[in-house]
Amino acid sequence: MDQTRFDRQLRFVEEIDKLKQVFRQTYLLDGSRKENSAEHSWHLAVYALVFSAYARADHLDVARVLQMALVHDIVEVDAGDTYCYTDAPAAERQAREQQAADRLFGLLPADQAAQFLHLWQEFEARATPEARFLAGLDRLQPLVHNYLTEGRSWREHGVARAAVIERNRHLADGAPALWAFAERLINDAVTRGYLVP
Amino acid sequence: MDQTRFDRQLRFVEEIDKLKQVFRQTYLLDGSRKENSAEHSWHLAVYALVFSAYARADHLDVARVLQMALVHDIVEVDAGDTYCYTDAPAAERQAREQQAADRLFGLLPADQAAQFLHLWQEFEARATPEARFLAGLDRLQPLVHNYLTEGRSWREHGVARAAVIERNRHLADGAPALWAFAERLINDAVTRGYLVP
Repeated sequence: MDQTRFDRQLRFVEEIDKLKQVFRQTYLLDGSRKENSAEHSWHLAVYALVFSAYARADHLDVARVLQMALVHDIVEVDAGDTYCYTDAPAAERQAREQQAADRLFGLLPADQAAQFLHLWQEFEARATPEARFLAGLDRLQPLVHNYLTEGRSWREHGVARAAVIERNRHLADGAPALWAFAERLINDAVTRGYLVP
Repeated sequence: MDQTRFDRQLRFVEEIDKLKQVFRQTYLLDGSRKENSAEHSWHLAVYALVFSAYARADHLDVARVLQMALVHDIVEVDAGDTYCYTDAPAAERQAREQQAADRLFGLLPADQAAQFLHLWQEFEARATPEARFLAGLDRLQPLVHNYLTEGRSWREHGVARAAVIERNRHLADGAPALWAFAERLINDAVTRGYLVP
């Protein structure tokens, strides 16, 4: 065992424990509390496993999707979670997250740092069918939670239908059938008063 | 889209949200609270990604390890978490978990139910190099947390060195180098008074 290499790996898996303390705006389905980004990452990865057949791509590399799901929110250990319906400038978030990625993935040995950084960048840029599929699911999961908690997080932030359509429609690029389902959910949410028309 | 199939898949990803409310005996590294099984599953999957090169197997199927990590604790939605140093009979736990697996994975369409059930059974039986590697990591992660929280959970339960060795030594089957590290950690934990000698 290369002790220096192992020490860096251990330091990384210790540091990312903090993701369990980063809270999102999404509520758990029982409404008891908001979801944290670590358990969200697990849930998203299971979504990917269950729904992979709906991806637009003919030959989806599911292993890569899972790796991306595990890594996609780690930057939030430093950068925090940014609510998807915020008005804050995207450039600021991106700068903050890039700095976080450099520090956090930089804890790993160089080869693994590059691997993890690449997975995160691929996801952020929606650069591949795998990234587009996962980025779409990353919007579908909170949408389902919002719908099933009677729009709780939407209502708290006064979110309107147009914003939900705009921020979520890229799901159509990753998984068209899932976007058709999401649209039905959004329209029904308006009817039920969960979403501002 | 086959609506019946999709409805079953959706029901499953909704139901497993409850794993975020199943708490383990392990503390987060900041000591603020115990860890839940959903965020643990994420952390374990990242451990697998980071430490895969230490697996005993020459050709580890990392994709399969990740799938197993995502699925390995889902039965706890019904069966709860069983503390690894409990004296309760293993047969009771196994019966409870088998029933849980049948119900929970049974929410999925039959082909996916079989796939998830198989992943879980492979893990439980440590039937493959992938399962042995992951089962070992599943012991290493709480061991690291115990050590770094000054043996908090061990001390609460009066756990002794011999029990830790006995319940964790199968890590040597999955990843010998990691077991060598774990043994050093355990011995140091005794020296520091975190573990009963």
